[in-house]
Amino acid sequence: MSIQGIDPRTGSPVGDAVPATDPQPLLAAAADAFGAFKTTTPGVRAELLTLLADRLDAAAATLVPLAMAESGLPEARLTGELARTSAQLRLFASVVTEGAYLEAILEDADPTATPPRPVLARMLEPIGPVLVYAASNFPFAFSVLGGDTASALAAGAPVLVKAHGSHPGLSRAVASLAARAVADAGLPAGVFGIVFGDDEGVTALKDPRVKAAGFTGSTKGGRFLFDVASARPDPIPFFGELGSINPTVVTPAALAARADDIVTGFVGSFTLGTGQFCTKPGLLFLPAGHGLGPALTAAVAATPPAPLLNARIGDQLASGLAELAARDGVTVLATAADAPAEGSWASAQLFTTTAPALAEDPSLTDEHFGPAALIVEYRDEDDLFAALATVEGSLTATVHGEAGDPFPVARLLSVLADRAGRIIWNGWPTGVAVSHAMSHGGPWPSTTNASHTSVGTTSIRRWLRPVTFQSVPDALLPPALQAANPWHLPRRE
Amino acid sequence: MSIQGIDPRTGSPVGDAVPATDPQPLLAAAADAFGAFKTTTPGVRAELLTLLADRLDAAAATLVPLAMAESGLPEARLTGELARTSAQLRLFASVVTEGAYLEAILEDADPTATPPRPVLARMLEPIGPVLVYAASNFPFAFSVLGGDTASALAAGAPVLVKAHGSHPGLSRAVASLAARAVADAGLPAGVFGIVFGDDEGVTALKDPRVKAAGFTGSTKGGRFLFDVASARPDPIPFFGELGSINPTVVTPAALAARADDIVTGFVGSFTLGTGQFCTKPGLLFLPAGHGLGPALTAAVAATPPAPLLNARIGDQLASGLAELAARDGVTVLATAADAPAEGSWASAQLFTTTAPALAEDPSLTDEHFGPAALIVEYRDEDDLFAALATVEGSLTATVHGEAGDPFPVARLLSVLADRAGRIIWNGWPTGVAVSHAMSHGGPWPSTTNASHTSVGTTSIRRWLRPVTFQSVPDALLPPALQAANPWHLPRRE
Repeated sequence: MSIQGIDPRTGSPVGDAVPATDPQPLLAAAADAFGAFKTTTPGVRAELLTLLADRLDAAAATLVPLAMAESGLPEARLTGELARTSAQLRLFASVVTEGAYLEAILEDADPTATPPRPVLARMLEPIGPVLVYAASNFPFAFSVLGGDTASALAAGAPVLVKAHGSHPGLSRAVASLAARAVADAGLPAGVFGIVFGDDEGVTALKDPRVKAAGFTGSTKGGRFLFDVASARPDPIPFFGELGSINPTVVTPAALAARADDIVTGFVGSFTLGTGQFCTKPGLLFLPAGHGLGPALTAAVAATPPAPLLNARIGDQLASGLAELAARDGVTVLATAADAPAEGSWASAQLFTTTAPALAEDPSLTDEHFGPAALIVEYRDEDDLFAALATVEGSLTATVHGEAGDPFPVARLLSVLADRAGRIIWNGWPTGVAVSHAMSHGGPWPSTTNASHTSVGTTSIRRWLRPVTFQSVPDALLPPALQAANPWHLPRRE
Repeated sequence: MSIQGIDPRTGSPVGDAVPATDPQPLLAAAADAFGAFKTTTPGVRAELLTLLADRLDAAAATLVPLAMAESGLPEARLTGELARTSAQLRLFASVVTEGAYLEAILEDADPTATPPRPVLARMLEPIGPVLVYAASNFPFAFSVLGGDTASALAAGAPVLVKAHGSHPGLSRAVASLAARAVADAGLPAGVFGIVFGDDEGVTALKDPRVKAAGFTGSTKGGRFLFDVASARPDPIPFFGELGSINPTVVTPAALAARADDIVTGFVGSFTLGTGQFCTKPGLLFLPAGHGLGPALTAAVAATPPAPLLNARIGDQLASGLAELAARDGVTVLATAADAPAEGSWASAQLFTTTAPALAEDPSLTDEHFGPAALIVEYRDEDDLFAALATVEGSLTATVHGEAGDPFPVARLLSVLADRAGRIIWNGWPTGVAVSHAMSHGGPWPSTTNASHTSVGTTSIRRWLRPVTFQSVPDALLPPALQAANPWHLPRRE
C-alpha cells in the first residue's frame, strides 16, 4: 500500500507515492524516548520547539509550492499558515519556559487536618507517547508540526504523527525536517516519528505504548477512531476535533444597522478556504423578511469556483448538498458559476429555510464541508430559541447585535455558551487566534471531549496528568518541585 | 425492584427496602436547574456547600449508627469519615470563593499576531448535569455527599447521585438532608437528586441530559459503565476510579534500618478498613532473604477478623484468594484466625512469591479487595525493575528507603511516577489527605482517565469546559470576565 498525492486543481499525481510505514519500530522508539524526553529541562524543550520553527520558516520556499500542489490552496494562504505554524511552535517554547502549565502546588504538612496532611508536592507530568492525526484542511497548522504536535512536544510527550493521505509529499518533507531538528537538538529519534497509511494508523492507536491521541477531521472518521481508543483493553483519551455547524445569529437591530457588512462578511467567511474550515458559519439565522436575498445572491454569484482539498470531499459535498436541496422547506437561494470539470472544484451555494422547519428536521443542521451554508429565517424570539435548541454542539457560535439591542442578547449568549466553545460578537468565526485565551473545542459532535481546547496554549493540558509526591525528600523530587525552585516556575505554595 | 440494606456483621436486613427510582423526572429537573445553577454567584454556591456540611455534621448522631449497621465499619472510623466529608464540602466552598479554578484569562487584541488576535476572554464553565456513582467502601466520603458531589456542585453542575446498593438507608437519609439544604438555599430542586437501582443508573448514564459521570468502584463495574458512556450517540467523559494494586518497595537499606516498623506499618495498612481501601498496598516488594516471615506471620495472626462491606465482596475475595493460592510460585505466608460464619467477615491473609514469578504471571498483580496482600521477593535491582515493568497503573506507589540509600531510588521513583498518581516516601498509601496538592488517580486500570484526580481541590476540573468570549462587550460578559472583576478573581490578564 502506498499513498499518492493528487493535485485537486487538475486531478494529476504529484511526485512519487509514499509507501505505508510499519509503525512497530516507531512505537518502540517513542516508548524508549519517553524516559529521556520527559525529564528534559524547559530550556532543552524550548530549544527544540524553536529549532523546529526556524527550520520550518527556512524551508518555506520548498514547502509552500509542495503544499499548493497537494492541497490546491493558494500561495498567500499557505505562506500565512506556515508563519502561523512556526509562531505556534515558538509560543509553546515560551509556555515551556514560563512553566505555569505544570500547575505545581506545594503544601506543608498539617497534622490537624481531617484526615491529617503530610508534605505534598503536585505537578503535571507528560502522559506518555502521543499519536497525532493530521488534518487535510490545514496542511501546516493542523498537520505534521501543527498545534497537536507542538503542544505534545512542549508537554514532554514523544509524538507519532499519522500523516494525512491528502498531502503525503508535504508530510514527508516536514517530517524529515523535524527528524533532523530532533537529532540536531541531541534528543533521541523516538521523540518524533511519522506513520503513513490508514490501517497503520489504527494499528498504532491500538498499541499499548500510545497513551493519548489527538485528531482533527470529520465526525465520521473521528468517531471511528474514538471508538477504537475507547475499546482498547487499556482505554486512552482521544481528543478529536470533529465537525461543526457554527450557528450565527443576526438580530433585527443588527440587520437594520449593517445589512451590507453582514452580507459581505458572511459570504466571505463561509467561502473562505473553499468553505473547508471547521469554523465555517454553516447556519445564519436572519429575521424573516430580511430582504437580503438579492445581495446574498449577488455576493455568492461573484465568488469564483475554487479547488477542494481532495476528490472525496468533493463527492461528499455534492451528495450532501443534493440531499439538502431535496429536503422539505429548503430552497436553493444562490449558486455561483459552474466549476471546472477536471480536478475537484466547488462553487459556492446558499440555501434557505425557516426556524420551524429546522426545529422539525435536525438533519438540516448537518455540516457540509465546502462553500455552502443555510440561511434560517426566524419570526420572533420563541421561533429562534426553539430552533437553537435543536442545534448540536459547535466549535463556535456568533451573534451580530447592537449596543442597547432590544433583542434578549444576554440570554442568547448564555444559551449559545452551553453549545459552543467560542462565542463571537459582531465578527465571523473563521479566524482562530493562537493565544492563551483561545478555545477551539465544544460539546459533541464538535469534539469527542468538550473539556479541552485543541488551539491555544491551554491545549497542552491534554497531554498531561497529575502526580503528587508525598513526603519525598527534596533531592529526590523533580526539579519543578524542589524547594529552591531551580526552574523559577510560578507555583502555588 | 427495591434495594435492601444488610448488616454484614450479621446478615440481617437493616430497615425497610428502598424502592428503585424512575430517573426521568430527576433528569428533567437537573437539566432545568442547570441554567439557574451555573449562573449562581460564588457566594451562593459556597453557602450551599457550607450548609450541606453543617447539616451533615448536625445529623452525625443518626447517620453514623445507620452507616455502621449497613457497612459494618466501626464507629470511630465513620465519625472521622463524616468529619472528613463535611470538611471536604467546606474546602470546596473556599475553592468557589477564591475562584482560581475558573482559570480566567483575559487578552487584549493584537493585530500584529499571526493570525491577528481579537479581544479574548476565557474561563471554565460547568459541563452540565453530572451523574455520580457512589462507592460502598466510604459511605460518607465517596458516597452521596462525597468528593464527586462536592466538586461538581462547586463547579456549578447539578448532581444526580446513583446510590450504592450497600447502604440504601444511609443514602436516602443523606439525600433527604441534601434536598432540604438545596431548598433552604433557595435553589431549584434539580440541583441535587438521587437514583436507586442499578438499571435505573444505567438509564440515567445513557440520557443525553447527563453530560459527565464520576464513579468509584471496581474495575469490572467501572469498565462496564465507561463503555456505556463512551458508546452513547453523544459520548461523555466518564471519570472512573477503579481498582489499584499500589506497589510498595522496600530497599535493602530500609529493611536493615526499620524492619519492625515496616512489618507493623504494612500489616496495619493492608488490613485497615478490612482491606477495603482503593489505596491498600497489595504488593510489597522485599529483598530476598528478608527474614520478616515470623514477624509478618505474628502480625497477621494478631489481626482480628472484621466484617466486609457486603456478601458480594466476601464471595469475590474468597474465590480470588483461592485462585491466587493455587498459582505456581505463590505460597500462603500467614492467615489470621477464622472469621465468624454468619454475616460477611474476613480474616487477614498474606501470600508470598518472587519477582521473576510475578514478571511471568501478570495475574498475580490483580487486586483482591479485602485484607490480603502479596509479598514479592527480589534478588537485585534487575529483578525488581523487571517485575515492576509488569505492574499496571495504580493510584499510589510507595518506596521505603534511607537517606543516602545505595539503591537507585531516583530511578525507582521515576519509573513509579509513570505508573501511579501519588508517590509516597517512607509512608503507607491508605491515608488520602483532601487538599490542593493531593492526586488520587493514575493510569489504567486504576482509573478510566489518568488526566484527572478524584480527590483534592483540582478534582473540580473534571466538571468544567473552557469557553472563550471574542469581542463580547463587557456588560454581556459573565461577571468572572468583566473588566471590573466584581468577584475579585485571580485572573491571567
